[in-house]
Amino acid sequence: MIRGKDGTIIPRVVIERLPRYYRYFDWLDGKVEKISSKKLGEYMGASASQVRLDLSYFGDFGQQGYGYNIKKLKQELANILNINSETSFIIVGAGNIGRAMTRYKAFANTGFMLKGIFDINPDLRGQKLGNVEIRHTDEMVQFIKDNHIDIAILAIPKDEANEVTKTLVDAGIKGILNFAPLDLDVTNHITIENIHIIDKMLALSFMIHRA
Amino acid sequence: MIRGKDGTIIPRVVIERLPRYYRYFDWLDGKVEKISSKKLGEYMGASASQVRLDLSYFGDFGQQGYGYNIKKLKQELANILNINSETSFIIVGAGNIGRAMTRYKAFANTGFMLKGIFDINPDLRGQKLGNVEIRHTDEMVQFIKDNHIDIAILAIPKDEANEVTKTLVDAGIKGILNFAPLDLDVTNHITIENIHIIDKMLALSFMIHRA
Repeated sequence: MIRGKDGTIIPRVVIERLPRYYRYFDWLDGKVEKISSKKLGEYMGASASQVRLDLSYFGDFGQQGYGYNIKKLKQELANILNINSETSFIIVGAGNIGRAMTRYKAFANTGFMLKGIFDINPDLRGQKLGNVEIRHTDEMVQFIKDNHIDIAILAIPKDEANEVTKTLVDAGIKGILNFAPLDLDVTNHITIENIHIIDKMLALSFMIHRA
Repeated sequence: MIRGKDGTIIPRVVIERLPRYYRYFDWLDGKVEKISSKKLGEYMGASASQVRLDLSYFGDFGQQGYGYNIKKLKQELANILNINSETSFIIVGAGNIGRAMTRYKAFANTGFMLKGIFDINPDLRGQKLGNVEIRHTDEMVQFIKDNHIDIAILAIPKDEANEVTKTLVDAGIKGILNFAPLDLDVTNHITIENIHIIDKMLALSFMIHRA
């Protein structure tokens, strides 16, 4: 349970919308000075009152009759989202997705620093992907402890995903971005965000076939 | 608006949950014969009544006092999700994500057939990624028309994303899986599913910092 400024629990969907707000403020910055909650709602596909409620969990940002100051709120959201501080992460799995993630430049722009990449295949050990070399998963637990890593991107087959998750949690990982096509065992008391590519494609396909 | 069996509008969140139901039934198939809505709800993180309501949009599947027959409902969901029929798609952008998607084996298992990959860089033209060669974006519109392509995976920088989307829609594309870090212009009357990797990482990071 994560609580906002006044102690109320922040709904997870609101937390998950926060990066989108940041993207809009980043996009608006330099274009306009301020924005109303109504106009911001139009961008977000939400009502003005929803926008005001969403942002109220994180602070008193708007001024009645003025709206939100773009530069100021962008800065506030950047602080709230830790964009200007460094957050280390590792990638588990040096397959197609894992490799694409090692080269994904947007991480560095938002404070995410790739510290290591691990794979179970011993033949890949020592291979360099950008500035980071592939290590064997045997070294993973010690590496996480030594480098105080909090976040892992999981890009491995689903049959191994729960066992590897348990290892990660035992080593001290607190959050996982999961690309494996399953819902990870949640008894581990860990924060998980999923990217289920096939689920998205199936939903998309269903909607266009039915539309 | 997509309507269910009895004419009621199916909420988008329900459609987006459907592939997850399918994954559970696929996983349960061979392990057990039937499942109650209560037990299914435990897997889904939902109540029994939510599960019954979700599935009721698509048909009369359960039997009171028996529950859901795994094999039968898996088959029904596969049909509803068009998993056993072929759905063609293209990839736009032969960068890191686009290339990872060309090699993503799970597409073929769920009926998605990659027909083409396009990039604006003329130096990449003719390069083979698996069985598919990279074509220049100049050839894209004709290719979509000739091959009756409905779905595109968009894996290009955000500054070009809206212009390319307009081209795709004009050529006949009906659905986009968008990896570009922006919300595409929705005035195009097209179905969009987003995979916003940085949004997910920022939400994850926020939650573990606040937990």
